[in-house]
Amino acid sequence: MKLHERPTNSISDVWDIYKEDLKKVEAQIIEDLDSEVSLINDVGYHLLKGGGKRFRPLLMILCSRLCDYQGADDIVLASVVEFIHTATLLHDDVVDEADVRRGQPAARSIWGNQASILVGDYLYSKALYKAVTLRNQEVNEILSTTTKKMAEGEILQLSKTADINITEEEYLKIIDSKTATLIAATCRLSGVISEASEEKKDSLARFGWDIGMAFQLADDTLDYTANKERLGKTLGKDLSEGKITLPLLHLLKNCNETEQPIIHRIIKEGGVGHNDLEFIHSLFRKYNSINYSLTKAKGYIKAAKQELACYEDSIAKQSLIAVANYAITRDL
Amino acid sequence: MKLHERPTNSISDVWDIYKEDLKKVEAQIIEDLDSEVSLINDVGYHLLKGGGKRFRPLLMILCSRLCDYQGADDIVLASVVEFIHTATLLHDDVVDEADVRRGQPAARSIWGNQASILVGDYLYSKALYKAVTLRNQEVNEILSTTTKKMAEGEILQLSKTADINITEEEYLKIIDSKTATLIAATCRLSGVISEASEEKKDSLARFGWDIGMAFQLADDTLDYTANKERLGKTLGKDLSEGKITLPLLHLLKNCNETEQPIIHRIIKEGGVGHNDLEFIHSLFRKYNSINYSLTKAKGYIKAAKQELACYEDSIAKQSLIAVANYAITRDL
Repeated sequence: MKLHERPTNSISDVWDIYKEDLKKVEAQIIEDLDSEVSLINDVGYHLLKGGGKRFRPLLMILCSRLCDYQGADDIVLASVVEFIHTATLLHDDVVDEADVRRGQPAARSIWGNQASILVGDYLYSKALYKAVTLRNQEVNEILSTTTKKMAEGEILQLSKTADINITEEEYLKIIDSKTATLIAATCRLSGVISEASEEKKDSLARFGWDIGMAFQLADDTLDYTANKERLGKTLGKDLSEGKITLPLLHLLKNCNETEQPIIHRIIKEGGVGHNDLEFIHSLFRKYNSINYSLTKAKGYIKAAKQELACYEDSIAKQSLIAVANYAITRDL
Repeated sequence: MKLHERPTNSISDVWDIYKEDLKKVEAQIIEDLDSEVSLINDVGYHLLKGGGKRFRPLLMILCSRLCDYQGADDIVLASVVEFIHTATLLHDDVVDEADVRRGQPAARSIWGNQASILVGDYLYSKALYKAVTLRNQEVNEILSTTTKKMAEGEILQLSKTADINITEEEYLKIIDSKTATLIAATCRLSGVISEASEEKKDSLARFGWDIGMAFQLADDTLDYTANKERLGKTLGKDLSEGKITLPLLHLLKNCNETEQPIIHRIIKEGGVGHNDLEFIHSLFRKYNSINYSLTKAKGYIKAAKQELACYEDSIAKQSLIAVANYAITRDL
């Protein structure tokens, strides 16, 4: 195949090389979405077709190719993990009272909180239903462990809202649970369906986990620094929701006694004051807090790439490296 | 055993005979609830220990005894189905904006909607996690099919809110999905862990389904007729939430042309007017709508009992008959 002969350096190459697989994922998602209850189709379609970049399905496909997987279960599971991810977004938007998702109105802005909660429940149960049809105990164990941990992470995050005493360890535990664990599971599942060795399954899971940690760290940084138009994000959203992420955590730890009470007041009020966000940004620059977070994210990406060392060079491996680099450079 | 020699006629006999099993269920529920995230324990404990009558766990135990089951998986699954049921209550209360549950403040009144949504997610995922540990494909299939159908039923109900054109068939489909399917699954699961024949598993599932249909029909009638103090219910709650249940459906079908627009107005406004509920009650009496619903409920109970015909007489069978009779006489 000619395409496979050129080096894979960028994420757009990756999307291009695997576009046929990704088309199969889209078809699977549409098939899985189909319900006789039309409200499910409307809400599900809005969210599942609303600009998600299929990061998890892409990783599922790439890791399966890395393991020379030949079957079709990767497509089924790609849809499963995307459904689980989408279900959490629906519930997150209700919990965060978010009006916008990926630059478009959040489902709850159109159909209300009630539909968002119940369609989230549906997508989640449909995902596990599809997974069970594969009749693979290990798949069920991975997914049920993962979803339990994700739910725990969301609640831990909620219980730490606006808690200025949150530690870096607790923050890392939250992003582990809410983001890294599903991406780790995605990559491990590729190994499971490929019947890879325990060592390889573990290294795939660690690869996914590192990518997930790096991605969430980068995302939490982007919340303060992103180009609003490009990402459809509102800057300082985490601050307004009382989510204390690593840049702010770093700042809280390093600021002086004069700055501290002002930062506490801003967190308490959710950064609603006119110059609050600007003040926080000036302190980020003073204490190098953004850089601290991004350096940590880069460390995870470095660790992720090292997990691939045991695999021979291949298009899939090059693609996974491209995805790893991409994970901390922009919103996924 | 002396206790087992006397006839089991009433539900209080049943609670008494199986109190040791039910204690094991309580211990299992507490064990399964345990999380290192304290908010989960607080909310979960409030709801799981807040006056639920363990109807599904009791059916799980009774059906397992009916099948001479000797293992311990019935206790695990009793906790699993109670967790699933509790998760739906948490989400239902958010969707319905309910302030009271079983005569006590709803979890959302104490901890807010956010915690209720996320702890619901947690209980649900924890239930499926526990189920997966049994390593039984059939158990996973039953539970994943059931939870998917339950979520669909909730959304169908939401989409039919205040819809005066809802048909009896649609109403029955809603109560099938939201109530009967989990009770059917509970009884079927007893058959599965007992390695009962396909015929016996099917008859157990039909028994549970009939009980569930009858229970929900009776519950929907009680919403208009119950003794408020005894059940901790607010009369006409379904009407205020736009839920058109069988008594109202029957009324809509049988009322005359003068009454119809008034009923439509009351449904649209949620029965908030001072004399609205009284007016509806007078029409219920005129058209015998409550009786129509209860007769239907009794029909399901009769069908349920017939499913037990293939089993020899036993304490478990007598107990199941007592539970069947109880299902339509009061709130469970």
